[in-house]
Amino acid sequence: MPQYNPPLRDMQFVLHEVLKVTDELRGLPPHADIDADTINAVLEEGGKFAVEVTFPLNISGDEEGCTLDKTTHEVTPPKGFKQAYAQFVEGGWAALSCDPEYGGQGLPFVVNQCFYEMMNSANQAWTMYPGLSHGAYEALHAHGTDAQKKLYLPKLVSGEWTGTMCLTEPHCGTDLGMLRTKAEPQADGTFKLTGNKIFISAGEHDMTSNILHLVLARLPDAPQGSKGISLFIVPKFNVNEDGSIGSRNGIYCGGLEHKMGIHGNATAQIVLEDAVGTMVGAPNKGLAAMFVMMNAARLGVGNQSLGLTEVAYQNALAYAKDRIQMRSLSGVKAKDKPADPIIVHPDVRKMLLTAKAYAEGGRALAIYCTLLLDKELYHPDEKVRKDSGEIVALLTPIVKAFLTDNGHIATNACMQVFGGHGYVKEWGMEQLVRDNRINMIYEGTNTIQSLDLLGRKILGNNGATLKKFGKLIGALIAEEGVNEKMAEFINPLAYLADQMTKFTTELGFKGFQNPDEVGAAAVDYLRVAGHLVFGYFWARMAQTALREIAAGNPDPFYLGKVQTARFYFAKLFPETATLMRTARSGSRALMDTDAALA
Amino acid sequence: MPQYNPPLRDMQFVLHEVLKVTDELRGLPPHADIDADTINAVLEEGGKFAVEVTFPLNISGDEEGCTLDKTTHEVTPPKGFKQAYAQFVEGGWAALSCDPEYGGQGLPFVVNQCFYEMMNSANQAWTMYPGLSHGAYEALHAHGTDAQKKLYLPKLVSGEWTGTMCLTEPHCGTDLGMLRTKAEPQADGTFKLTGNKIFISAGEHDMTSNILHLVLARLPDAPQGSKGISLFIVPKFNVNEDGSIGSRNGIYCGGLEHKMGIHGNATAQIVLEDAVGTMVGAPNKGLAAMFVMMNAARLGVGNQSLGLTEVAYQNALAYAKDRIQMRSLSGVKAKDKPADPIIVHPDVRKMLLTAKAYAEGGRALAIYCTLLLDKELYHPDEKVRKDSGEIVALLTPIVKAFLTDNGHIATNACMQVFGGHGYVKEWGMEQLVRDNRINMIYEGTNTIQSLDLLGRKILGNNGATLKKFGKLIGALIAEEGVNEKMAEFINPLAYLADQMTKFTTELGFKGFQNPDEVGAAAVDYLRVAGHLVFGYFWARMAQTALREIAAGNPDPFYLGKVQTARFYFAKLFPETATLMRTARSGSRALMDTDAALA
Repeated sequence: MPQYNPPLRDMQFVLHEVLKVTDELRGLPPHADIDADTINAVLEEGGKFAVEVTFPLNISGDEEGCTLDKTTHEVTPPKGFKQAYAQFVEGGWAALSCDPEYGGQGLPFVVNQCFYEMMNSANQAWTMYPGLSHGAYEALHAHGTDAQKKLYLPKLVSGEWTGTMCLTEPHCGTDLGMLRTKAEPQADGTFKLTGNKIFISAGEHDMTSNILHLVLARLPDAPQGSKGISLFIVPKFNVNEDGSIGSRNGIYCGGLEHKMGIHGNATAQIVLEDAVGTMVGAPNKGLAAMFVMMNAARLGVGNQSLGLTEVAYQNALAYAKDRIQMRSLSGVKAKDKPADPIIVHPDVRKMLLTAKAYAEGGRALAIYCTLLLDKELYHPDEKVRKDSGEIVALLTPIVKAFLTDNGHIATNACMQVFGGHGYVKEWGMEQLVRDNRINMIYEGTNTIQSLDLLGRKILGNNGATLKKFGKLIGALIAEEGVNEKMAEFINPLAYLADQMTKFTTELGFKGFQNPDEVGAAAVDYLRVAGHLVFGYFWARMAQTALREIAAGNPDPFYLGKVQTARFYFAKLFPETATLMRTARSGSRALMDTDAALA
Repeated sequence: MPQYNPPLRDMQFVLHEVLKVTDELRGLPPHADIDADTINAVLEEGGKFAVEVTFPLNISGDEEGCTLDKTTHEVTPPKGFKQAYAQFVEGGWAALSCDPEYGGQGLPFVVNQCFYEMMNSANQAWTMYPGLSHGAYEALHAHGTDAQKKLYLPKLVSGEWTGTMCLTEPHCGTDLGMLRTKAEPQADGTFKLTGNKIFISAGEHDMTSNILHLVLARLPDAPQGSKGISLFIVPKFNVNEDGSIGSRNGIYCGGLEHKMGIHGNATAQIVLEDAVGTMVGAPNKGLAAMFVMMNAARLGVGNQSLGLTEVAYQNALAYAKDRIQMRSLSGVKAKDKPADPIIVHPDVRKMLLTAKAYAEGGRALAIYCTLLLDKELYHPDEKVRKDSGEIVALLTPIVKAFLTDNGHIATNACMQVFGGHGYVKEWGMEQLVRDNRINMIYEGTNTIQSLDLLGRKILGNNGATLKKFGKLIGALIAEEGVNEKMAEFINPLAYLADQMTKFTTELGFKGFQNPDEVGAAAVDYLRVAGHLVFGYFWARMAQTALREIAAGNPDPFYLGKVQTARFYFAKLFPETATLMRTARSGSRALMDTDAALA
């Protein structure tokens, strides 16, 4: 059976030693009293919850899946899911980073980030039920009317109800401008919605007494395309003014998808038939309102793959130490055994370290991003708030696409460590690969993320935000450029940072002449940008670790960190050499191919 | 529902236009009368069989899986599998390339290769039932006694019985030296075998009246390790001297694995309890005898991924032309539609062309290898026979590992083209990813293949065989070095061929000092070697196509081939830049990591 140990030590390293989050957070009025002990204690309890409550349901949830009763349209998730959710609500976990005005605990986002990483390691399918709710909470919190907030937010905050995002329709996923679901205004100010949605995660279940669907739809007079989309809140059960549950609304599950993975989560086809809803935000501005939820969800998806990468790594490491097979090429290592543990083999180490380096680099980046979210919301200096928001917007497509692609590489590598035993279900490794695979697709495919990054976030403002992030790298280089012990990390990072400026300018020029050049280079570009960012965080982590070692700290954790940084720069970071080459080879080899693709 | 069209045109291109196989085959006495029409006609019929008989069972077979009756130990494969197998036998397909002395049709291996590619595209899980038999046929044909051949081969050739390979045990897969199954000699010259085998593909089923298990086991006095292993044939039902079926033997299915994919194939735990067998080959020389089967199987596994890559490509291409979503970045393409077909987007083309280039490069390499097998067996000149055998031995780990890794990349890319629809089962794309995943593991993991290539096949003879293959590349460069139209293909190929010599010598020196350097570089090295080989075949295919175009042939097939070659060299081949860099970064970053992997 698989195992999972919450990586609390590594989280604490990133939070307190590398990013020094409490210093940063104390500068934000709502978090002026935060201290490391509180954060650590919450995460320790959160880790226990993940290990004890949802992790034991991961394999059984995958095997059992969800069941739809076609007469009642009710969905039953796998055994134990409902009970675990009740414990989640009882423990107050839904409220962790929510606004105290609506019953939230008001903890910083960084805490929620680390908690959800562990929840994703334990059980991604289960965690999507409260995870989607949190996105609905954020969209309503940002764009709801006072009445909507008062009516709905306390229930989302407590976890008493869950939320969903209803965007996709059978004929449109990426291209929401084509959506057809209609919203007819009613005399009482409400709307009646009719249409078909698909791929709605956590779309129907019996874990809560109500579900709040956030639905994109068109008003009768709406302009065509993406400028004619409005956002509505459509509860499964209508909600009376006093907050009590009323009649069943005309929104129900028409079918469940049979998927490659995340079987424990109900991916629902949602049918709306004169479903009553109220509008969230302004008419025809639904996409903007939904983007609050989507940006949160994109960071959340990256976090899902971070969780899977970590748990895959832990299991592959344990297996590699335990499984004996063949002798080390450089001489017998375990003389008392008929063969050596496979961790003596260089390529087994490479697979393990790939997962470890991607998990730990991803953790640093993800925590950094949520710290920016905390600062964007509460920093007293407007410029800091603005810069924080800009940088997190730049990093969001990287977190989404780079971490999920890395999760694909890492879960597959960890599965490979198990040989044939990785392909059978009992070890749980192939499930991690299947579960991770959706993360590269939903909330905007990774190709869409790359276009968002290169086209919008970078070329869209002539690289201004990239330069802001580049200044952080520049500062690190200035600080460590003459430190010989840091040279193996700083030199490749500085070289890539240099190259990146030139590379970006080139692509800007080429894209100006032919926009397909941007589309042809974007995916490669995103991975280069991902390594630039990971390179920065790995250099910072190595810096912190080397300082501890220099100060005589005997904890082998720091040496391990330096070794992992060395592996990252030697074996993973050089991918950028090829990526820049293929990106520079341009669009012709892709677009002048009509005969090939006939 | 998925679709599949046998790629007969591309097969004919490789067979007749690039490799000119009939010219080569006619030089081999048993094939002196072969002609292109015969080959094409057999493949056309073979393609029909794949499309009409086994392809319709692919998704249902995945959904249904195999069922074990725990009281009788009998396994029932998915619905329709047994009937399809009867048609396979009736059509004479099992006998295609088998020895006419035992009822075979005696067609060249190249024909069997192309037939099996199509069968793998149609249904890998089904195709493994006869596929494993063919390996058993080859091992018995090479190492069986006359009595064994006479008794068993006609039934394997006709397909009346199937065969298996029983190697792996719970505690050993890669490291067969540790295996424990015992074979006790009996007074009558037979042996009684006792032990437990796992992961036995096609290990039990009701499709044939008997199953011939080829089992590795130890004699009582056998030396320890891999030098004490013998090979036995152990039929499910004992076979009387007249070939009729006798009593049930003590070999049965103790359980079925629940796997990520290939659900239609019964992956059996095989229990031997005083099972009666006869020895194949000499005592303690079982591994050598089994290697005949394993080498065939390794080429066969590469062929499985080739088939999956092709069918994934065809479906993704059709979907990309049909699915409309967003507008082209370079201006509206389908003015009559609310959005453009997604094939206008550069990255969608990149995903499609990746699969196409890997499929067509793989096809050329795989056919080339089986042509070498034909020559190794029958060429009148001993030196040609020897060289052919050496080169196919060199290329076998490349076919196995490079084609299966490419299949992983390609099936995942093609699934990604479908967006969310790729993740649900109905389109069949996620099944291709799951089915392909085993190919990177079984018959020796891809890491083992890379060690076989670099350690044994290349450094083991100081690069002598690599030089023989290098001569082919040299000849092509000499032939086309001044042809401007070929420069974009020849230049990168020539550059890599140059680098490769230096790179190999370096690794040889480093490995001499520290064998872990070989283990650290091997996986990267194999992918570089794979691209060297693919680069050679892509250049040859471009050469053939450019000549046709120059001669005024208006068939757009040739332009498509040149465009795909251009894509391959622009977008896939440059991966070698990073791979050589990471391979050269050495073993320290992997091995000096005990603190990291604590």
